[in-house]
Amino acid sequence: MMEGITGEASSIAGHLRLGKLTLLYDDNHITIDGPTNITFTEDVAKRYEAYGWHVQQVEDANDLEAIAAAYQAAVDEPERPSFIQLHSLIAWGAPNAQGTSKAHGAALGEDEVRATKEVYGWNPDKHFKVPDGVPERWQARVAANQRARAEWQRRLAAYAEAEPALAAEFQAALAGELPAGWDAELDKLLAEPKKQATRKASQQVINALAPNLPMLVGGSADLAESNLTDIVAGGDLTATEVGRNLRFGIREHGMGAITNGLAAHGGLRPFCATFLVFSDYMRPSVRLASLMELPVVYAWTHDSVGLGGDGPTHQPIEHLGSLRLIPNLHVIRPADGPETAEAWRAALRRVDGPTALVLSRQELPTIDRTRYASAAAGLHRGAYVLAEASGGEPELILLATGSEVWLALAAQDELERHQEIPTRVVSMPCWELFEAQDQGYRDQVLPPQVTARLAVEAGSTALWHKWVGTLGGVVGIDRFGASAPGGTALIKFGFTEVNVVERALAVLHREHIEKARMLRNLSA
Amino acid sequence: MMEGITGEASSIAGHLRLGKLTLLYDDNHITIDGPTNITFTEDVAKRYEAYGWHVQQVEDANDLEAIAAAYQAAVDEPERPSFIQLHSLIAWGAPNAQGTSKAHGAALGEDEVRATKEVYGWNPDKHFKVPDGVPERWQARVAANQRARAEWQRRLAAYAEAEPALAAEFQAALAGELPAGWDAELDKLLAEPKKQATRKASQQVINALAPNLPMLVGGSADLAESNLTDIVAGGDLTATEVGRNLRFGIREHGMGAITNGLAAHGGLRPFCATFLVFSDYMRPSVRLASLMELPVVYAWTHDSVGLGGDGPTHQPIEHLGSLRLIPNLHVIRPADGPETAEAWRAALRRVDGPTALVLSRQELPTIDRTRYASAAAGLHRGAYVLAEASGGEPELILLATGSEVWLALAAQDELERHQEIPTRVVSMPCWELFEAQDQGYRDQVLPPQVTARLAVEAGSTALWHKWVGTLGGVVGIDRFGASAPGGTALIKFGFTEVNVVERALAVLHREHIEKARMLRNLSA
Repeated sequence: MMEGITGEASSIAGHLRLGKLTLLYDDNHITIDGPTNITFTEDVAKRYEAYGWHVQQVEDANDLEAIAAAYQAAVDEPERPSFIQLHSLIAWGAPNAQGTSKAHGAALGEDEVRATKEVYGWNPDKHFKVPDGVPERWQARVAANQRARAEWQRRLAAYAEAEPALAAEFQAALAGELPAGWDAELDKLLAEPKKQATRKASQQVINALAPNLPMLVGGSADLAESNLTDIVAGGDLTATEVGRNLRFGIREHGMGAITNGLAAHGGLRPFCATFLVFSDYMRPSVRLASLMELPVVYAWTHDSVGLGGDGPTHQPIEHLGSLRLIPNLHVIRPADGPETAEAWRAALRRVDGPTALVLSRQELPTIDRTRYASAAAGLHRGAYVLAEASGGEPELILLATGSEVWLALAAQDELERHQEIPTRVVSMPCWELFEAQDQGYRDQVLPPQVTARLAVEAGSTALWHKWVGTLGGVVGIDRFGASAPGGTALIKFGFTEVNVVERALAVLHREHIEKARMLRNLSA
Repeated sequence: MMEGITGEASSIAGHLRLGKLTLLYDDNHITIDGPTNITFTEDVAKRYEAYGWHVQQVEDANDLEAIAAAYQAAVDEPERPSFIQLHSLIAWGAPNAQGTSKAHGAALGEDEVRATKEVYGWNPDKHFKVPDGVPERWQARVAANQRARAEWQRRLAAYAEAEPALAAEFQAALAGELPAGWDAELDKLLAEPKKQATRKASQQVINALAPNLPMLVGGSADLAESNLTDIVAGGDLTATEVGRNLRFGIREHGMGAITNGLAAHGGLRPFCATFLVFSDYMRPSVRLASLMELPVVYAWTHDSVGLGGDGPTHQPIEHLGSLRLIPNLHVIRPADGPETAEAWRAALRRVDGPTALVLSRQELPTIDRTRYASAAAGLHRGAYVLAEASGGEPELILLATGSEVWLALAAQDELERHQEIPTRVVSMPCWELFEAQDQGYRDQVLPPQVTARLAVEAGSTALWHKWVGTLGGVVGIDRFGASAPGGTALIKFGFTEVNVVERALAVLHREHIEKARMLRNLSA
């Protein structure tokens, strides 16, 4: 009740009048550091009334009839979520621990367990003793639940008979299966060269997929106009209408938790969106999605200093790197429209964890597939040779993601034409997918003997050392951003063809010196 | 008002009865995506009443007298923070933009500016026109503020005459200066070998410093008993008492913002604490502290899977790495008591940004300073040679931080004694401080020619490639943790002397093969 996320989630639950939701608040007045009143004296029930909830009090949490009555009243209230404040004592009956914070974080210990059993009128020498009547109640509950489940299955079977197509769709969705041909629209979409932001390409993908993928629902934390996540004909989910666009309000952490809940429930494929820099607000929910293997999709736009004038508070620097560190999160930063389409395809194919799509605000050229690697499908292997060195034997490899890929291609052109350096460009949109490839493929893309490597990405440099090695270099940003038009900011931070070429030449120079030094050392 | 952090901060402000705080809520019913009622229909005023605030309404934000009266009433209310809900129209007077979301994120544009000037009765052809009467009001306000400042300075001078010592202390504190001898207690503290957790050592440091450092205040987000952050004789800050221990409740994000506010105000040196894994909850505040160069100290304990049974939700994996990526944040992970003392010294010396102290739950041995590097003061250079290779010419370097340093020392012993491999151990508690050293020192600690390197740290491996290079290795954890006693978890994840030795031998083996291959290639 103190954590901000409860406020975010409860406010939106009240707004959406989620009448099926009941929250039992075990108000035992104890936290780890002592009684709650050392930090928490607000009127929680009144706060929930302010959120528009149906609020009830149960004065004694041991009054089971009162709880049952309150719960029934909550179930009977269809228009508002229900909040039941149960006034309770922690460690009830434990003569020395009851009502104290020591009962919160530690086991009672043998003596106190004995004393508690005596208070309950149980034999303190009996272990694993189930009191009389409990097994019978338990069995009765099992039988009732079995009847309820059988009844539900009977209704589902009847529905399947009456509406076989809809029932099959429902069951496939619950099983997490995607309908046949769900991504048929993607192949041709975005193929035509066009200068546009990857967030804009993402918008086209969402709207191309939506008709064939009824389980796709999602939205933004009050940035739909910027993240470009609206399903155009999807309608909004409101208190009275069932639509596919979710309006989360300015509640990123709650948004992350809500999409986790939708994914855990099943039957839907939820996505959510905000600026990449605000992924920090939802990081605990992203970690839980990864830990719980929930197939949530994040559309995080405005992915570098290239967003421009909003300045350092809005410009992500460390975010790409810090997200790549979360286990089981796939982070994909596509370079153009076709890679964006493949990124969504990869995200939706995934069933065992979340995927972050990291998208540009600024326009990017479409990579010329007649000149470079013919298909963006290389994205599914995480990294792929986008432009081979002339002669096929690279002396230098340029690695890049997203909005820096076209810059790597421009630098390659210069290095090949005017410096006569055979240079390969590797597009590396998803490190996690690349790491999942076998060593043979990885060595094919990044041959171990080609140690002159330069990475180009508008974010922290530190993680790239893994790929560029000791002799390589990174064109990146290791300070906070700056307020300027996006193009200017990128230029000032060194994302220019001239700088990339210069840095590439420096890498080659250092490599030559280092190899000569090694040769001397090894021969000596 | 939607973001969870406002709930956290407002709840604690009400609890502490911060009567000097007034919040003007410009309730214009507009967010970026449209009217607030698409996502936000709660009764905000009632929510603030529930927090214990003094709540007022101003029905028309253009009624300046009503605002002034409400503000005066807020100032006159000493017992409760005040909330003034101003009902306003965004872009007031702009005939087409008023009351719409398009006025939120974009400039009005020339036509609408002209039209607005006409509504205001101004000449639409005049630019930078200051309406009559405004300069006079402005000048009057400047004069009034100058008088107020002069009066304050007069009172301060009078105070300095009456209480020269206290006045000097006050002014030094406001200037961010630490009193002479503030850290005199640290040198002997913790020197005696003792097996204890670094969080426990941190507790001793806090309490040794507190008497000489009256500006040191802080606390935990309901984990004081675990973070060990209480200033023993400091008293609590409550609604009625001025103490030095801040009880933040379970509100990590709000805690980060509050400590930022205290540091920005000046006069105090605030610290705050939670488990390292929950640094995710406060990450946006940590980023702002770094961006705003605020000297906040974070005491983040339970810093690895070594915390044990709470399991993956509580075991940090990616946190150390993702914090190291935040620009201007110093992350220090001390290895024993003396390094913990130096870590606090470094954190409090710092005036241009925050410092994270990353502390163990589990007990660690004190490094034997008669056998290894004589002083923990090497910490101030970020990394230092803790144990030199026999003969002084290492073939292998083991790098480690915090709770893995003693393990590196044990492995060194084995490698030197039984494998006859000259092995250096580098303690590397703070990468940011090490990166700030000159190249000469860095090459002294990590000689470029010694490429056989193994890092040992109970967290993500990825960032370590920067230090161990292409030929090196990392003993770390790249998956979520597991619920087990801390010692068992560490063993299962490979943090054993045997595994570190084996991995070190593998690194040496790979290096020999690689060098032979290079020699062949280079000679060919």
